[in-house]
Amino acid sequence: MIDLLLKNYQEKIDMRLNILIPETSANYKDVVESERYSVFAGGKRIRPILLLEFYKLFGGEDDCAYNFACAVEMIHTYSLIHDDLPCMDNDDLRRGKPSNHIKYGEAMALLAGDALLTESFGVAARTMGISPELVTKAITYLSANSGVSGMIGGQVIDTCTKGEMTEEVLKEMYLLKTGALLKISAVCGAVLAGADENSIKLCETYAEKIGFAFQIIDDILDCSGNEEKLGKRIGSDDKNNKITMVSIYGVEKCRLMAKELTNEALDILDSLNGDTDTLKEITKYLLDREY
Amino acid sequence: MIDLLLKNYQEKIDMRLNILIPETSANYKDVVESERYSVFAGGKRIRPILLLEFYKLFGGEDDCAYNFACAVEMIHTYSLIHDDLPCMDNDDLRRGKPSNHIKYGEAMALLAGDALLTESFGVAARTMGISPELVTKAITYLSANSGVSGMIGGQVIDTCTKGEMTEEVLKEMYLLKTGALLKISAVCGAVLAGADENSIKLCETYAEKIGFAFQIIDDILDCSGNEEKLGKRIGSDDKNNKITMVSIYGVEKCRLMAKELTNEALDILDSLNGDTDTLKEITKYLLDREY
Repeated sequence: MIDLLLKNYQEKIDMRLNILIPETSANYKDVVESERYSVFAGGKRIRPILLLEFYKLFGGEDDCAYNFACAVEMIHTYSLIHDDLPCMDNDDLRRGKPSNHIKYGEAMALLAGDALLTESFGVAARTMGISPELVTKAITYLSANSGVSGMIGGQVIDTCTKGEMTEEVLKEMYLLKTGALLKISAVCGAVLAGADENSIKLCETYAEKIGFAFQIIDDILDCSGNEEKLGKRIGSDDKNNKITMVSIYGVEKCRLMAKELTNEALDILDSLNGDTDTLKEITKYLLDREY
Repeated sequence: MIDLLLKNYQEKIDMRLNILIPETSANYKDVVESERYSVFAGGKRIRPILLLEFYKLFGGEDDCAYNFACAVEMIHTYSLIHDDLPCMDNDDLRRGKPSNHIKYGEAMALLAGDALLTESFGVAARTMGISPELVTKAITYLSANSGVSGMIGGQVIDTCTKGEMTEEVLKEMYLLKTGALLKISAVCGAVLAGADENSIKLCETYAEKIGFAFQIIDDILDCSGNEEKLGKRIGSDDKNNKITMVSIYGVEKCRLMAKELTNEALDILDSLNGDTDTLKEITKYLLDREY
């Protein structure tokens, strides 16, 4: 049931992304090939799906938010390409394939990331059928939460505070690095549908809960997951002496934490008006994922 | 006269940039310091000034376009930081100072560039006092012309076609790599002021002329400029065996070309309604610049 629903969404999102980042024979075709390599590497499209579901929950009309949903996926993809670069995490494997810079070289991976980020905002700005007031409000949120006080800030904390990480800073890093894009997805969906401020606040809290749970599960999978299913190297946190929730609390305690956060997220969904059954399914799916 | 005018603009732009990218004591403060290092490294602010002048020419009300003008400068700055990285041009000097990655390391330079790019669109989206329709139209133009079919495309051509560059491809590269941001400046100024499509077309052609002239002058300065005034290494094109208009036509012919392009740009300004005296001064200043 949930699998079929996700598959339907994934197909529609992939079709739109294929239109938004078309193959080309122009002189700059190499960078487009590099962009498409990472965009179509088999991502689960969790973020755009969340955006579309929250948009629907608050009364948004069907396909209008697809551009914005794809913009969020493009930002997610750029962040993975840049994070894998030698000067960052230096990862050679991503989604079971060579990382972008292994395949296309560092210069092209840098430019492909820059291109996806640059174009994501144009894609978002070309959201049709929704008032430009709401679109600029959502773009403002998208920018703020993927910049230094959001996703990039999380990456900076990760880069700068390797040894001396405290639990408090670690939680802030999780909230920013992983939580920010999930928050963007939930909130921008709500904003584009014209949701009120109180509902938007609830969406933010929901996303913070699942964002924290998401990162804890990532940490668990990094030490006990299946490399083939995950499509990336496991044990990298341990190898890099990274402090994670798992290294502080151990796997079992972390599983309980993730479960508790998920239940809190489900309670928030219950408190919202409208049919949240699908969102609940997705929320539970995120907890149980194996990759 | 022109110096005083530019200085006044520069001060106002710097004040706004200082508000838009404030110093912080947050856990991600390192990346903000790195952003500010390059943003306040002494840029001439040509692009935002052009945007503000075109905005005024088409009847825009005073300070409303400052955010958008600063967004263009932020994109210009990110592009310089990423271009200087070891995997790109590997330049250690910029505006007379160590390049961003020399000062802050590669990881932080990458993230500072990403942050400036990400935040530029949020800054643009927070343009107040101008209708959101025009703001989203301008953001669409900004994104399209700084992405693969604009500035990044130019960089890709530069990176991919080192040896086998033809004059035709070289011109395309100039138009994209240098011309795109000048085009964005002129056109977005006009768009934000609500200019008609015909005028916008003329702004594009004007910017293409000065963009081409600008790059030719850059090439001339690279082989015969003053390293101290320029604040960057000269002779790098020659050292890297780069084909440029100067390597094809020689300095004297190139000076004539730049002069001719500037005259054509001045003619276009003449054909526009309104007071274009200041824009003409700026256009001539760009031709005569020594850095």
